[in-house]
Amino acid sequence: MKLLDFLSPPTEAAQRAGPGNRIVLSSRVRLARNVAGFAFPGWAKKAERQRVCELLREAVVRQPQMRDGFIATLEGLSALDKQILVERHLISREHAAKGAGSALVLSRDERLCVMINEEDHLRMQALLPGCQLKEAWLAIDELDTGLEQELDYAFSHTLGYLTACPTNLGTGIRVSAMLHLPALVLDEQITQIIQAVNKLGLAVRGLYGEGTEALGNVFQVSNQMTLGESEIEIVERLAKVVAQIIEHEENARARLLENRPKMIYNHVGRAYGILANAHSVSSKEAINLLSLLRLGVDLGLLPDLRRTLVDELFMLSQPAHLQLRHSEKLSAEERDILRADMLREALREVRRPLSPPPAPPVDKPPAT
Amino acid sequence: MKLLDFLSPPTEAAQRAGPGNRIVLSSRVRLARNVAGFAFPGWAKKAERQRVCELLREAVVRQPQMRDGFIATLEGLSALDKQILVERHLISREHAAKGAGSALVLSRDERLCVMINEEDHLRMQALLPGCQLKEAWLAIDELDTGLEQELDYAFSHTLGYLTACPTNLGTGIRVSAMLHLPALVLDEQITQIIQAVNKLGLAVRGLYGEGTEALGNVFQVSNQMTLGESEIEIVERLAKVVAQIIEHEENARARLLENRPKMIYNHVGRAYGILANAHSVSSKEAINLLSLLRLGVDLGLLPDLRRTLVDELFMLSQPAHLQLRHSEKLSAEERDILRADMLREALREVRRPLSPPPAPPVDKPPAT
Repeated sequence: MKLLDFLSPPTEAAQRAGPGNRIVLSSRVRLARNVAGFAFPGWAKKAERQRVCELLREAVVRQPQMRDGFIATLEGLSALDKQILVERHLISREHAAKGAGSALVLSRDERLCVMINEEDHLRMQALLPGCQLKEAWLAIDELDTGLEQELDYAFSHTLGYLTACPTNLGTGIRVSAMLHLPALVLDEQITQIIQAVNKLGLAVRGLYGEGTEALGNVFQVSNQMTLGESEIEIVERLAKVVAQIIEHEENARARLLENRPKMIYNHVGRAYGILANAHSVSSKEAINLLSLLRLGVDLGLLPDLRRTLVDELFMLSQPAHLQLRHSEKLSAEERDILRADMLREALREVRRPLSPPPAPPVDKPPAT
Repeated sequence: MKLLDFLSPPTEAAQRAGPGNRIVLSSRVRLARNVAGFAFPGWAKKAERQRVCELLREAVVRQPQMRDGFIATLEGLSALDKQILVERHLISREHAAKGAGSALVLSRDERLCVMINEEDHLRMQALLPGCQLKEAWLAIDELDTGLEQELDYAFSHTLGYLTACPTNLGTGIRVSAMLHLPALVLDEQITQIIQAVNKLGLAVRGLYGEGTEALGNVFQVSNQMTLGESEIEIVERLAKVVAQIIEHEENARARLLENRPKMIYNHVGRAYGILANAHSVSSKEAINLLSLLRLGVDLGLLPDLRRTLVDELFMLSQPAHLQLRHSEKLSAEERDILRADMLREALREVRRPLSPPPAPPVDKPPAT
């Protein structure tokens, strides 16, 4: 089966909303595991990697959650397929760069994805829409438990699960939430929030994970430590911090609307004006402007516009998703034009954002 | 009479179109003259400046062209009045900075303006809309001839009219045209054009004359030399160069529309989108975006919009004109908000710019 026949179309994917969707775009828990007796993928020769890959693929597809899933070797995927998977946050950029001896298995509902021979033999994740950290943990824990019955995981009674990089040692868990924080950015509080979160031993990253920019005011918050705490403690601690960040963002939105409404209306108005009228838009600009449009929807400034449409445009504005809609290979310049055409068309029937209620009159009629 | 009661309102002023208005915003000829036996304004003591001022004012107001004109000493004008006169290009920034002993006389039709004790005793100009260099020359020559019958101009049979700065010596003439050249800027030909014009001994300056930026793609082309050529030769030479620049600009517009239509539509669309939706716009941004909107009108992309409305908004976006519409003294931040309100309101009923005709279909339906 082809990846594109398997994956749900963007409209449908964007409609999968979870609780707290207004600020938390998605919740993710991933576990790193390795099989005893085999070298880590970075050390293993090709033949050994292929052997491990075969073994693990069989174990993964036997799990009931993965029934009717999508299975592919990295060699079997086109560059476009891999990029689509990255843009959907289903695989890491690092995994997309792998070749022979690496594979992936994606569950039918697209909530579970197992990368084979990424940095570790197994990197399995549950990715749920909205704020569902605990649900994501339960889902991936169940898959991991099933796999552990079949596989001999590399495990030390003193260190826990062994991983290729010591930063994952112990529980091998990475819990993360993707947060949309435009008001904290506009209110210039974001640096302070990031510092506070860092002090709690949590990491804040950009849209595509480690080493990436915070495009579109989207920040990924995740645990740093994988040792010395149980998985559920890590999940609950992150959930608590996420709840606090949500509160800060909501407060910042209310405060900006109260104290600096013109600034908010200006940002939302400009974003709408450009997206509805430009004839060339880069993916970076599109994502940044769509973020402001999403804020406008959240604040009720764009009564015609649904948040799911913004989320769909967000997805469709990314290079591989845009390429998908066109048969010929596009240059970056052509993509920018087609992206603008798509955005203009999507917003054609959407009326201009509202203006703030008028201030008490202080003006006289024009003097000349 | 108050200046603001005398000056025509912006709507009316913007409707005074001249021939070739599409590219030539205005044509100006100014003459520098001094009266024999008095020190130049920069050297004269206050009492002498005031004596000259009195003498010249009387001579100027006796001219038939200046009947029912507006007469004011620089001390008698408010800072706002002076700024309005600068924004209308009726006086120089330098003259606006003058105080006791300086004055101005403006003709009823606002086409002639005499500055008394600017850098020279007399700086008189004719300012006409559109491409009317010769007409401007004839108008100011007539006023000068009238004045010369009453005044003893400082004149040397070898050097011509004597002026405070040697760059004006001889004819004392400065002929200039204000050109709107957005396509030459977008096509990156403008630097080359400026260099070519400079080689012909002509100067290219920004919107407010010497030492100012080319805001809004507006360039002022003027003669540099005032010696060795007759006035009419200077006027005709400049007119010829202006005609060539107009041709280059028209060619650039046609070429861009033919070869890079998306780029043009993108610039015009974005300008419209921002102006119609922003809630804070600086005067510099407004002027730059209105320039692109004017290009859109010229190219037929905005069938709802009249060029005179764009020209009016151009005028009204300048700080002093904006302040005029409001009784309280505005901060720069407040001005930016009120400017945006004015622009949004003006464009409320103007439909989005057209899109280019669709390219031949090459796309398949979306793949996912």
